[in-house]
Amino acid sequence: MKLYDRDISGNAYKARLLLALLNLPYERVNVDLPGGENRKPEFLRLNPRGQIPVLEDDGRVFWDSTAILVYLARRYGGEQWLPTDPAAMAEVMQWLALAQNEILYGLARARAINLFKRPWNLEEAQAAGRRALDVLQERLAGHQWLALERPTIADVACFPYAALAPEGGVSLQDYPAVRSWISRVQQLPGYEGMPGL
Amino acid sequence: MKLYDRDISGNAYKARLLLALLNLPYERVNVDLPGGENRKPEFLRLNPRGQIPVLEDDGRVFWDSTAILVYLARRYGGEQWLPTDPAAMAEVMQWLALAQNEILYGLARARAINLFKRPWNLEEAQAAGRRALDVLQERLAGHQWLALERPTIADVACFPYAALAPEGGVSLQDYPAVRSWISRVQQLPGYEGMPGL
Repeated sequence: MKLYDRDISGNAYKARLLLALLNLPYERVNVDLPGGENRKPEFLRLNPRGQIPVLEDDGRVFWDSTAILVYLARRYGGEQWLPTDPAAMAEVMQWLALAQNEILYGLARARAINLFKRPWNLEEAQAAGRRALDVLQERLAGHQWLALERPTIADVACFPYAALAPEGGVSLQDYPAVRSWISRVQQLPGYEGMPGL
Repeated sequence: MKLYDRDISGNAYKARLLLALLNLPYERVNVDLPGGENRKPEFLRLNPRGQIPVLEDDGRVFWDSTAILVYLARRYGGEQWLPTDPAAMAEVMQWLALAQNEILYGLARARAINLFKRPWNLEEAQAAGRRALDVLQERLAGHQWLALERPTIADVACFPYAALAPEGGVSLQDYPAVRSWISRVQQLPGYEGMPGL
């Protein structure tokens, strides 16, 4: 298994985190984003969106962090990480959607503006990020995990940019249940961090 | 089954379209977004994100258009619309992710700026929208459907805002394979349109 990757990418880290929790061996291929390697034809053949992460397994290629989580969970994780029951699967999907919307366009954007000087509106991103944290806080005030009563890929998908929120200037001080959940994720067997975590 | 809905919402239309293709009866509940009904406590109890669509079925509530598609496909659609094979499911997921990222923050945003005077950057949204159309066009130049060799919820998720792109000032003229695919979707048994389509 091969992961096209970058150390400081929270999206790529979602894949690394699940690979670590599932104790799966893989090869990391660093993609030089600042050097534009992701816009070269060889890389665009792997992923037409020109983004990391990309996963290769058994000669098949999957782009998008959420699709990679779904693939790994279904192929190697059994029912624990992504159940096939319609309602349970939809519960997980709700949080995958939050991870791709308010969390990505809020918390991750605010971090990218601060760290990589991206030309977006910081206040707008931080406001969207706080809306995401409000939703996480409300759920986690009454539950240990996001989707079900056990960790699933919903937690893996929401964790990185929630835990990295302070790098985007969004404090976690008002979100105690989110902070407790971050600690719980960090105590999962096999947990692996990333720069900043 | 009850769908909290709004006529001109492309996200809610994703759910209506799959319900129509699956020939499932349901009740539509119009949510008065301009009147702020989605920010009232009763609605936030259904969906903490304060958005439509929301689906109620058998006493369970699901928010988020993608989660609703996954729920309906797994519960009522069998293997056709969302297969459980890990690789096939991941193929579908890739396009659900595109629908939630470049399509939503590109094509849907551009449309919302034009139609609802939302305060975002039109050029930025249109550029992201064209990146999404490039990816769709590349895939559809060699395939009839997005994820597999048959229609799946990948097509249902990407269809609305791709087909509505001109309402956001993004022409489909340079995307002939996307236009052909739009016609194929519109010819599916049970297909139902929305205002603008």
